[in-house]
Amino acid sequence: MTSDDRNARGARSRRRRRAEAGVEQLPRRRIDNRLPPVAVLEEEQVEAIHETSLRVLEEVGMDFLHPEALEILAAAGAEVESGTNRVRFERGLVEQAVARAPSRFTLHARNPERDVAFGGSTINFGSVASAPYCSDLAGGRRSGGYDDFCNLVRLVQSLNIVHLICGYPVEPQDLPPETRHLDCIRAFVTLSDKAYHAYSLGRARILDAIEMTKIAHGLDEAGLAAEPGLFTVVNTSSPLRLDGPMIEGVIEMARRNQPVAITPFTLSGAMSPVTLAGALAQQNAEALAGIAFVQLVNPGAPAIYGGFTSNVDMRSGAPAFGTPEYAQAALAGGQLARRYGLPYRSSNVNAANAVDAQAAYESEMSLWAAVLGHANLVMHGAGWLEGGLTASFEKVVLDAELLQMMVEILKPIEVDDDALGLEAIREVGPGGHFFGSAHTMERYETAFYRPMLSDWRNYEAWREAGAPQADERATGIWKQLLADYEAPPLEAAVEEALDDFVERRQGELKRAA
Amino acid sequence: MTSDDRNARGARSRRRRRAEAGVEQLPRRRIDNRLPPVAVLEEEQVEAIHETSLRVLEEVGMDFLHPEALEILAAAGAEVESGTNRVRFERGLVEQAVARAPSRFTLHARNPERDVAFGGSTINFGSVASAPYCSDLAGGRRSGGYDDFCNLVRLVQSLNIVHLICGYPVEPQDLPPETRHLDCIRAFVTLSDKAYHAYSLGRARILDAIEMTKIAHGLDEAGLAAEPGLFTVVNTSSPLRLDGPMIEGVIEMARRNQPVAITPFTLSGAMSPVTLAGALAQQNAEALAGIAFVQLVNPGAPAIYGGFTSNVDMRSGAPAFGTPEYAQAALAGGQLARRYGLPYRSSNVNAANAVDAQAAYESEMSLWAAVLGHANLVMHGAGWLEGGLTASFEKVVLDAELLQMMVEILKPIEVDDDALGLEAIREVGPGGHFFGSAHTMERYETAFYRPMLSDWRNYEAWREAGAPQADERATGIWKQLLADYEAPPLEAAVEEALDDFVERRQGELKRAA
Repeated sequence: MTSDDRNARGARSRRRRRAEAGVEQLPRRRIDNRLPPVAVLEEEQVEAIHETSLRVLEEVGMDFLHPEALEILAAAGAEVESGTNRVRFERGLVEQAVARAPSRFTLHARNPERDVAFGGSTINFGSVASAPYCSDLAGGRRSGGYDDFCNLVRLVQSLNIVHLICGYPVEPQDLPPETRHLDCIRAFVTLSDKAYHAYSLGRARILDAIEMTKIAHGLDEAGLAAEPGLFTVVNTSSPLRLDGPMIEGVIEMARRNQPVAITPFTLSGAMSPVTLAGALAQQNAEALAGIAFVQLVNPGAPAIYGGFTSNVDMRSGAPAFGTPEYAQAALAGGQLARRYGLPYRSSNVNAANAVDAQAAYESEMSLWAAVLGHANLVMHGAGWLEGGLTASFEKVVLDAELLQMMVEILKPIEVDDDALGLEAIREVGPGGHFFGSAHTMERYETAFYRPMLSDWRNYEAWREAGAPQADERATGIWKQLLADYEAPPLEAAVEEALDDFVERRQGELKRAA
Repeated sequence: MTSDDRNARGARSRRRRRAEAGVEQLPRRRIDNRLPPVAVLEEEQVEAIHETSLRVLEEVGMDFLHPEALEILAAAGAEVESGTNRVRFERGLVEQAVARAPSRFTLHARNPERDVAFGGSTINFGSVASAPYCSDLAGGRRSGGYDDFCNLVRLVQSLNIVHLICGYPVEPQDLPPETRHLDCIRAFVTLSDKAYHAYSLGRARILDAIEMTKIAHGLDEAGLAAEPGLFTVVNTSSPLRLDGPMIEGVIEMARRNQPVAITPFTLSGAMSPVTLAGALAQQNAEALAGIAFVQLVNPGAPAIYGGFTSNVDMRSGAPAFGTPEYAQAALAGGQLARRYGLPYRSSNVNAANAVDAQAAYESEMSLWAAVLGHANLVMHGAGWLEGGLTASFEKVVLDAELLQMMVEILKPIEVDDDALGLEAIREVGPGGHFFGSAHTMERYETAFYRPMLSDWRNYEAWREAGAPQADERATGIWKQLLADYEAPPLEAAVEEALDDFVERRQGELKRAA
């Protein structure tokens, strides 16, 4: 798409917006999670999990499947078992390394208004990521492609409540794997001005993403190190293994001071013990080992403690999400992250096959646990369905509503004389009505959250409108958002430089393949 | 239905149950809410609301629409405005009266195993109540009738997670209004052995309910006073009014030491100020006035602080439920109830017209707020739809799942050497798998919550099964529960005495009508 195309489309879109009412949503703002963090573990239980995780790293060890990692770890004093990838860590080494990670940092977007603060009580919601399929009610479920990818990025850009892009919302399987990352990062930069994620799939890909971010942000190597501009999530291959391509990503990102979230995928009963305490001990061991590794590569580099412990359905072995055990683990994960003073990543997940009541209640379970666990980053915040196999357009809208509602609950309650309304109560008096009172009239337009998706019509009006369920209503909303979408401004020179880079690297990578 | 019919049906039902797998559910148990209560108000904000509510009662006053109430209040020192129903309370009078209400009490069921403890961190879930309509997917929405009423009572009896009956699950509009209460209380006693609610709709009805409970529990007046056996919810007619029939209920129940929940229905923007602080101040004024009245009737009689502040949709005036403002009010209500050391009542509510994603997320918002607000009684726990206009059979099942999941989150996490699983992690080692390990095999059958409604099949299997959404799956579950239902045992003499009472009173009431 040329820049002229984009401008022309932008103008059409602006015209259309003037003609129709767009989708009403909350204004963009930084979210302070003012609810107190909720503990599900006693203090001594947190310590027992901490102790066990350090014993795991001391006595069992973890496999780092890359020679460069083994060198770095050996040089730092870890015990590398000769002829293997097994690394054992003396506890002091882990604790000292982890202590070097900052408690707060900022992830910069190309639009400074979209910068994302990590740490403390700030909460940020990210997009769905890494789904192989996508779906919408009319089009059904299909393999991910670049068109759907771009539309999902446009939705993420359009929704104020989604603060950053956490990966490919759907895997664009119609693009060649070896150059896919180039198209995708370019799409992030051109279709959105929010901060984004790059996959740690080997050194070359992550370096390309870093170069493209330097171009997008107009920064050199030192500038990007001073203002981190992309982040990566590294999943351990639980139990206790970190794969080579991931390790290369960690090394290159940490060296350049770009944030790395270490997220063990400790599915209880499969990749970790069937007990919650055991799964958490293993999650903690893997997270601490990864974060220590980040710090050994570059002391002080930003790192995030990721928690993703859930359980399998023991009848089928299928992963389950948004379960009671998941919620407990997400709350406990927050306690562990706070113990180390690390920013915390959780998720908004579910295992439902449709955007139905199950999708909503499993997501709510995840979301409340993330909020009460004081997650700083809620990945898969909008769009995740079917255990992450599908990015759903309707689920994006449902989740945007859930996130907005949650954020409204976090708003401080005004309690001053005006708000307490003694005079209004006196004026209306027993048996009266507040609808027409001056106190109401002055405030009613902004007094309450106005929902995006919820339908509060009475039954008869709702029936007359065709009795649309929430998922059906969501279709109209994402279509409206796409119709109203405008690409954020981008300097032509930056776009050109980006195109040149992509073209050059595509050529190189195709020749190499 | 005769007792022989019931026995014959019971035997059929037992045979059927042996033949089929019933609905798996959590065992019945007392629920300790071990999460810390979450505060949305600062301490001084709670005090400001408290102060304002006392000023409302001092300066504005409240209307008590019954001469007996005015006498009781005047005798206690309240200022009754001559020739009106307006009562103003000196603050000391309110505070001293409220302080007499007990912090804990037990509501007894005819089966002592179903007794319900109120106060502290115990949480109890009640049935949907007072819906004029009911619905199920196949039968659609219809006016409430006695058959549906009985089936809903059977479901409540069958579900371990529903601890008590909070009113008529649906209004049996096919029964004559003047004798309806007799049929309904008899159905509560014969179809269920759980504790129940009686409506405060005038003196005669509540006295009938009390008499029937004495028969059901085999107690005389003093015995029932010592072991309260029914409760009533009294809604103020906000703003600041208590109606005559409700007052008669309060007087007769309180005199006999039966629990009274005072629940102002302070819909913000309509029946109370449009500001949350104002709505809470008014809620608090009405709740305190009602509870003080209970104590003036009978010092020490059990009372419950009810919170039901929600907001209207300012575009249509329709009440909304499960909104962010509702959740904040439910959390704040818990803070207020705890300030006075009173048991707290909240609800599981929504404004959805279908058992869809909206029904689930609005209910989750209400439910999390009730749990984090440390409600002791969650009314409308199972079955409430459409702002309370409809009792939905599928929603009963959806809610049972939500309640069960919540209760599982409240379970303590085991963190001992066995649970921490260091040996299991050592045995499996990096890159291994926990599925077949001894640690897993010994625990997997009971390790995780087994859902009632959630469908974790993979997409292909789910499609092949007809792609059932959660509401459709719920239909099969409530039908199975009804098929497996067995009436709890009841002594023939008790049933006969109950029948005699109902017959006599029906005759008297029909003659009087």
